[in-house]
Amino acid sequence: MLKLTGIAASSGVAIAKAFVHEEPDMTIELKEIQDPATEVQRLDDALTKSKEELSVIKDKTEKELGPDKAEIFAAHLLVLSDPELVDAVKAKITDDKQNAEYAMNEVSSMFITMFENMDNEYMKERAADIRDVSKRVLGHLLDIEVQSLATISEETVIIAEDLTPSDTAQLNPVFIKGFATDIGGRTSHSAIMSRSLEIPAVVGAKEVTAKIKTGMTVIVDGLDGTVIVEPTEDEIVTYTKKRDDFMKQKAEWAKLVGEQTTTKDGQHVELAANIGTPKDLEGVINNGAEGIGLYRTEFLYMGRTELPTEDEQFDAYKEVVERMEGKPVVIRTLDIGGDKELPYLDLPKEMNPFLGFRAIRLCLEEQEIFRTQLRALLRASAYGNLKIMFPMIATLDEFRQAKAILLEEKSKLVDSGVTVSDEIEIGMMVEIPSTAVAADLFAKEVDFFSIGTNDLIQYTMAADRMNERVSYLYQPYHPAILRLVKMVVDAAHKEGKWAGMCGEMAGDEVAIPLLLGLGLDEFSMSATSILPARSQLLSLSKEELAVFANDMLYLDTADEVEQRVRATFMNE
Amino acid sequence: MLKLTGIAASSGVAIAKAFVHEEPDMTIELKEIQDPATEVQRLDDALTKSKEELSVIKDKTEKELGPDKAEIFAAHLLVLSDPELVDAVKAKITDDKQNAEYAMNEVSSMFITMFENMDNEYMKERAADIRDVSKRVLGHLLDIEVQSLATISEETVIIAEDLTPSDTAQLNPVFIKGFATDIGGRTSHSAIMSRSLEIPAVVGAKEVTAKIKTGMTVIVDGLDGTVIVEPTEDEIVTYTKKRDDFMKQKAEWAKLVGEQTTTKDGQHVELAANIGTPKDLEGVINNGAEGIGLYRTEFLYMGRTELPTEDEQFDAYKEVVERMEGKPVVIRTLDIGGDKELPYLDLPKEMNPFLGFRAIRLCLEEQEIFRTQLRALLRASAYGNLKIMFPMIATLDEFRQAKAILLEEKSKLVDSGVTVSDEIEIGMMVEIPSTAVAADLFAKEVDFFSIGTNDLIQYTMAADRMNERVSYLYQPYHPAILRLVKMVVDAAHKEGKWAGMCGEMAGDEVAIPLLLGLGLDEFSMSATSILPARSQLLSLSKEELAVFANDMLYLDTADEVEQRVRATFMNE
Repeated sequence: MLKLTGIAASSGVAIAKAFVHEEPDMTIELKEIQDPATEVQRLDDALTKSKEELSVIKDKTEKELGPDKAEIFAAHLLVLSDPELVDAVKAKITDDKQNAEYAMNEVSSMFITMFENMDNEYMKERAADIRDVSKRVLGHLLDIEVQSLATISEETVIIAEDLTPSDTAQLNPVFIKGFATDIGGRTSHSAIMSRSLEIPAVVGAKEVTAKIKTGMTVIVDGLDGTVIVEPTEDEIVTYTKKRDDFMKQKAEWAKLVGEQTTTKDGQHVELAANIGTPKDLEGVINNGAEGIGLYRTEFLYMGRTELPTEDEQFDAYKEVVERMEGKPVVIRTLDIGGDKELPYLDLPKEMNPFLGFRAIRLCLEEQEIFRTQLRALLRASAYGNLKIMFPMIATLDEFRQAKAILLEEKSKLVDSGVTVSDEIEIGMMVEIPSTAVAADLFAKEVDFFSIGTNDLIQYTMAADRMNERVSYLYQPYHPAILRLVKMVVDAAHKEGKWAGMCGEMAGDEVAIPLLLGLGLDEFSMSATSILPARSQLLSLSKEELAVFANDMLYLDTADEVEQRVRATFMNE
Repeated sequence: MLKLTGIAASSGVAIAKAFVHEEPDMTIELKEIQDPATEVQRLDDALTKSKEELSVIKDKTEKELGPDKAEIFAAHLLVLSDPELVDAVKAKITDDKQNAEYAMNEVSSMFITMFENMDNEYMKERAADIRDVSKRVLGHLLDIEVQSLATISEETVIIAEDLTPSDTAQLNPVFIKGFATDIGGRTSHSAIMSRSLEIPAVVGAKEVTAKIKTGMTVIVDGLDGTVIVEPTEDEIVTYTKKRDDFMKQKAEWAKLVGEQTTTKDGQHVELAANIGTPKDLEGVINNGAEGIGLYRTEFLYMGRTELPTEDEQFDAYKEVVERMEGKPVVIRTLDIGGDKELPYLDLPKEMNPFLGFRAIRLCLEEQEIFRTQLRALLRASAYGNLKIMFPMIATLDEFRQAKAILLEEKSKLVDSGVTVSDEIEIGMMVEIPSTAVAADLFAKEVDFFSIGTNDLIQYTMAADRMNERVSYLYQPYHPAILRLVKMVVDAAHKEGKWAGMCGEMAGDEVAIPLLLGLGLDEFSMSATSILPARSQLLSLSKEELAVFANDMLYLDTADEVEQRVRATFMNE
């Protein structure tokens, strides 16, 4: 028996024989060619075959997993038709007399390096797309049979260095019981797919391909991030029970889709979802969210060559509020800055972009961008229950300025006969320590707070959450963080306002009892966390927890808090 | 009359005729030379002349301003003898047949660019040194008379784009009444020199060289950062009075050198100085500091090719505590990280170095570096009143670990017969919001707090203080900052500990009444701020201010706080 540890990417337990998905050997040599026309023809043939395959995969994915999951293959098809890429390859063939596979590999590597070096998750994903597509084309040029995961027809756990979009699209959840990869994090493509396919998965387990051979029995525990190779009989019994318990629990959770979230002592809290695009709404509705607690509007601005128009934005916002049918939808205005590259915005390169010119700071200066978004939001407000919140507020001046601009645009719209809701709540993110410490001053002027714990924690601890060397300081249960949450909730309630949370902490099972005890009104999280959170909240008493949570504020360390919560609520 | 605005670099008012210090035209053309040996000889002659001049300037500076001020010229002499630079120039002459001035300019520009691109103030200063030296050598090669400021013998205000170390060394305070520059900030070389020469100065005033001609009358107001060109009669009267009032005030301040700092209602507070090296002690003693509130030890580690040895450190620490003759000396352990390049430490390049792996985070991992420093500190403790504080503490775990390592080294030293003081206080910087918010937890275990406002403000406001686009958010008077100060002071007092402050805020005239009212025990600042601060504190009543400061916590914005302080205490 061997135990490997990685990152829990998708809940559940899988026990099955391993299939090690190996990268084919694609050694490519430069050859001087004599007949460029024939070589260009070879390239065109490979491109055509690749397009045919991708169309089949796209259609299959669309049918089985829905149109949003198929979109990545539309993107791949676009890469194959991109003249910038294809013409560059052909130029290398005709002008430099290079063989097609060498030319293809050179050009795609250049694009991959370019995209990977952008400090931007979206662009990094583009690098992965090009790598995936290029591998497919090279497979045809080299006449290498690329392993297909689609033909696997017995219960299997996939072991791989990483899984590409093409790979994950071929996974049939009937036979593929789980997977484990060497690389990746909770937000890498394979991790996101595993959650949406509901396949247990562990990513970033470093040496799974080195230690596991096809045919070995493997347990993938996506609940705690472990991979057990060649388990003992006892372990198989233990993990089979763990798997079955989890399946039973999932079935129980599913019954809660239409339920309200009411605690044991009869207090209602709102369980909402975080979304990035209207495409995420399906998961939100399937998981019974009571609203949208955070609609990040950045994606509307990314992967394009110019700013989104007011109408494009209006369409997106309207779609979300309409489909939520009167349930609250909190939309955050543009939160972008120096660490994200928008080709059409000339953002300065900053030494510390997380402490830089971004979000509301940028919007108050680049007012046309801000006003366009606000008009789109105001117009969409007529179609549902829309609330607006401003990100990265540090001072009351900033909130007042942002609100004044919003009201100015509103009255201009109203004057020109456009229907705008009169009940739009205007709130702010609490993600900068100054606003938590002075929450009482802000509470008088906002309609609500939404605590953004990802940033609030990183600023309060002065630790970049993306920097591995200081990630141990990202401590949601640190007494200082809990105290800041309390300051915000208390200040809101004193003024008759509500306080929510839209950071990762809101969906965390250790944090939930603490947050309920501190009086949080709204918990916004990723859609898949909603049902487990609801189930947990139904079993908790807010009144009892108020005393407990208050005690936690005076423990010395985050570890002690976590241990106390686990000992009290999780029998650990 | 024309009014220009810049940064107040050195207090006081100057009124005199302008002398515009112009950069000589050093157009350099590439010429192919026939006789490299003669050209090398020309270079050697220019180097020799430059060295002779620098030796004269160095001796003069040493005599008139003290050995520490002369050190920069020792550095310049080293540049001229640096084989890396000189050999590279000679290679260009002999191998590429370039003329000496072209070769010199090429090589020095390369070094300047290299040093300037380092994210490090120390290395940027090296770039300025090379520029200064190279200009001197080029002057000789091109046979251009470089203007000398040393020969000015009537009352003058110098106007320049910037002043190099060679320039400022020639300033004779008898005739040079003030200066104003286009570029530079409060910490640029010329600004530092203006304070140490006690010459009123305004830097970064952008267009002084464009708007002012030699012979025009100019007022340089180093108190509020303005430059008035061709003032009216009325203005001359007004500013003459302002100048004389300031001189009188300075004379009054000078009388306070040996005084205790006791408020109007008889409360003693400690006024201490921040230092970077033992060389700063002279200013500290001349300005009547009651202790050292912050000895930054980073300079010991910078500008070298390997770590400082334990003995080198011991010598520096011992010198400081001895010369302070029993007065308290708070020494901060190494505060260094990814934004400072130490060639012998392989620090990772980070996306947000201010939120990165630095200070105590690095020391707890690189324990040999940390333990070496701690041993040096412990050994030096026998020679005076030494206190140790740890920077960038975010959690109680970190403080406990750091303290445990210190105590471990202490008992090892004691066991081996070394004398170590038994009364070393062990404290921490409060510069990360979590530690202010949870100060009560830390207060039980530390001997003292020292609030580092520069960092505390930047994290609390999530605004990089070095980034001009968000510098408006660097708000020391923000109610949230004042509240954090109060939390720290109250927590310390409840446990019978003391709380100081070693950020820029401690010496700020608007902040001082607030900090006194909040109960701060120790104010540590740059040496030249001590006497004005003492004068101000003697006139304030701590008891009255307690009420006032508490009211300020509930104002809405930093601006309102500042206005109230100015209206109440400064008749503004």
